[in-house]
Amino acid sequence: MDIATRVYNHNWKIDPIFRSMLDTDFYKILMSQFILRERKNVKVKFKLMNRTKHISLAELINEEELRHQLNEARKVRLSKGEATWLRGNNFYGQKSIFKNDFVTWLEEFSLPKYELKKVNNDYELTFEGLWNEISLWEIPALSIVSELRSRALLKNMGKFELQVLYARAMTKLWEKIEILNKLDGLRIADFGTRRRHSFLWQEWCIQAMCEGLGNKFIGSSNCLMAKNLEIEAIGTNAHELPMIFCALAENDKKLAYAPYEVLEMWQKEYHGNLRIILPDTFGSKTFFDRAPKWLIPWTGVRIDSGDPVRGAEIALDWWKRNGEKTNDKLLIFSDGLDVSDIIMLHKKFSKRAKLSFGWGTLLTNDFRGITSEIISNPISLVCKVVEANGISTVKISDGAGKTFGKTEDIKKYKKIFSYN
Amino acid sequence: MDIATRVYNHNWKIDPIFRSMLDTDFYKILMSQFILRERKNVKVKFKLMNRTKHISLAELINEEELRHQLNEARKVRLSKGEATWLRGNNFYGQKSIFKNDFVTWLEEFSLPKYELKKVNNDYELTFEGLWNEISLWEIPALSIVSELRSRALLKNMGKFELQVLYARAMTKLWEKIEILNKLDGLRIADFGTRRRHSFLWQEWCIQAMCEGLGNKFIGSSNCLMAKNLEIEAIGTNAHELPMIFCALAENDKKLAYAPYEVLEMWQKEYHGNLRIILPDTFGSKTFFDRAPKWLIPWTGVRIDSGDPVRGAEIALDWWKRNGEKTNDKLLIFSDGLDVSDIIMLHKKFSKRAKLSFGWGTLLTNDFRGITSEIISNPISLVCKVVEANGISTVKISDGAGKTFGKTEDIKKYKKIFSYN
Repeated sequence: MDIATRVYNHNWKIDPIFRSMLDTDFYKILMSQFILRERKNVKVKFKLMNRTKHISLAELINEEELRHQLNEARKVRLSKGEATWLRGNNFYGQKSIFKNDFVTWLEEFSLPKYELKKVNNDYELTFEGLWNEISLWEIPALSIVSELRSRALLKNMGKFELQVLYARAMTKLWEKIEILNKLDGLRIADFGTRRRHSFLWQEWCIQAMCEGLGNKFIGSSNCLMAKNLEIEAIGTNAHELPMIFCALAENDKKLAYAPYEVLEMWQKEYHGNLRIILPDTFGSKTFFDRAPKWLIPWTGVRIDSGDPVRGAEIALDWWKRNGEKTNDKLLIFSDGLDVSDIIMLHKKFSKRAKLSFGWGTLLTNDFRGITSEIISNPISLVCKVVEANGISTVKISDGAGKTFGKTEDIKKYKKIFSYN
Repeated sequence: MDIATRVYNHNWKIDPIFRSMLDTDFYKILMSQFILRERKNVKVKFKLMNRTKHISLAELINEEELRHQLNEARKVRLSKGEATWLRGNNFYGQKSIFKNDFVTWLEEFSLPKYELKKVNNDYELTFEGLWNEISLWEIPALSIVSELRSRALLKNMGKFELQVLYARAMTKLWEKIEILNKLDGLRIADFGTRRRHSFLWQEWCIQAMCEGLGNKFIGSSNCLMAKNLEIEAIGTNAHELPMIFCALAENDKKLAYAPYEVLEMWQKEYHGNLRIILPDTFGSKTFFDRAPKWLIPWTGVRIDSGDPVRGAEIALDWWKRNGEKTNDKLLIFSDGLDVSDIIMLHKKFSKRAKLSFGWGTLLTNDFRGITSEIISNPISLVCKVVEANGISTVKISDGAGKTFGKTEDIKKYKKIFSYN
């Protein structure tokens, strides 16, 4: 695939960005099945937000083009072969994770309507409807906006200038891979769908990881990539589960238990490597301090905000206190990683636990130092649930920058979860 | 064109290297027409030589593969469209440079037989027959051996390792182009067919030059590239003309005049930009000292061996002595150039004469510093006339390393041409 030629062609030809219902993160599909079974009547509102305030997406991305891409995405249906893959493939070594009724539902599904407005020179893109359906907009919405940004930034470049741009990006990634390949026992996955430079570039990155890292590369969070490239699909669950369960809690006591309640239900649905704790939604420390005993034998913990060393130590400490051998436990690091973080964390923890790394934006969208500043820096785009059945959601997390919600709600949650 | 994929495929599929009679240097075609008219019965022997003694081609390149490529080359015929291009295209702004009888001859032509032997772990590849026909083997023979060497060196690389190799090479060339583009009034051409890394890579290099240098890139010595990419075909004549005319001279006096005799005949055939003096076959200094008056109005001088500054000064000095305005004269530098040489020569001479640069091996085969040493360094391959009608030829040139011939012949020639 000649990426530069294709990108060049974008200037004169529509090239749909979202072309397959599987071009999304694996955990979205896992959560979708879970929601359909457990909370199929919940209504939610998701909102796409640009956390990089000095960059205006509306100045860069043409509104008509954005609408065109979102409309194209709504035409996508799960194909026969894709349904077969969901039904027939082993995930994490388990057969038939996806039940027939869910796959049948997904075959009939199409992305629901969206609302797009320009507010203060930026786009406000919202999705309202059934949780189960709206949740599946997250990744397509993000990857469409992210790729339209790339296309806009590359629009005025010559064909060979583009080839050299990709040549440099390839060289840059390959050098990262060569460094990572020196780490004994490394296990690393692609988590870079949502803020990827482009579909084709993500595909290139994954294939380069396959070749350059061999068995150290364990798979991709992207189902379509996993299917097409015959690698493992990786992922478990996300913050939207505790956020929505908390928002819908009837009282403060139930709210405090909601993050555990959702996992209790999760383990009825899924086993083994799918039993991964994501403890940071309202602060990891208290999460573990108050964790019920049945969580202890779970496979591992994903560390997705705050200082990853602190996050890992909190989890290891919790296991130790509860008599677990940490060497059998899995720590998954997935927050804004680049090579230096991976090396540091690998050195620090690889003798104490099993590790895996979910490498995201700086795998699939690292053009820093390759061209001008504006092209080089990836932006922080998110698409989050902001309301459930009309009630505002809250996220606090372990570090600054990822917190959101109404001020009074944040205050309330901090109190309930004894957050410092 | 995805170069890496194609190169990867070479490992399992024959991919003929020489596929078009025009995949050769323009001057070969100009000389061929000249020879057919003036010396059509002369018999010659050309020999391919590897001047990089520490590298053994026979260890690297499979004999069967080499024979296969040479045999494939012999099947190539001038196509209808190619004949049309030779007949219809303007070269250096002139119409109908190629006469109908020559194009008709070329349409029926195929490369004659070759002789391939292994001698001391290296190949001895020789071509014997009519000058006009054998001369046309030079470029295909060189580019076949050169590309087979590249293929052999890349054989064990993975697909993405290859992509990164080309990514690095692209980046490297683009950086050179960006530097060259800063030179005001630069005029530079591709002269890199004979020792190119590969056909596809040469094509990429030329297209990158087109885009990156705009009007500063003036064309290619390769006819097929010129035709396909709609750029100028560049070239005039080569050392084989004076070498063979000298070898066939009946006595020492005629031998001393032979380098001028051949140019006298050349100007009957060609005009304007095709009247370029190549003075270094037996030393430039004496060549100009003894040059007849009719050479003075010629368009320019090509400097192809020795110190290029000295070579240029000798030519400028000769024009000045003979009352010519050097600002109207053309100096063509074509000997082992890279960016630093081009910058130096451009600074030194661009105010004193018209300049153009024929950029060869370090344009189309510069993989130095990109991978291991053995892949990185281009080798010095030549395919030269060694005999004419059974008489050995001689070349002395302005610098060491390019001299060849029998010791007693070199001695004789040095005396006749007062070579120091």
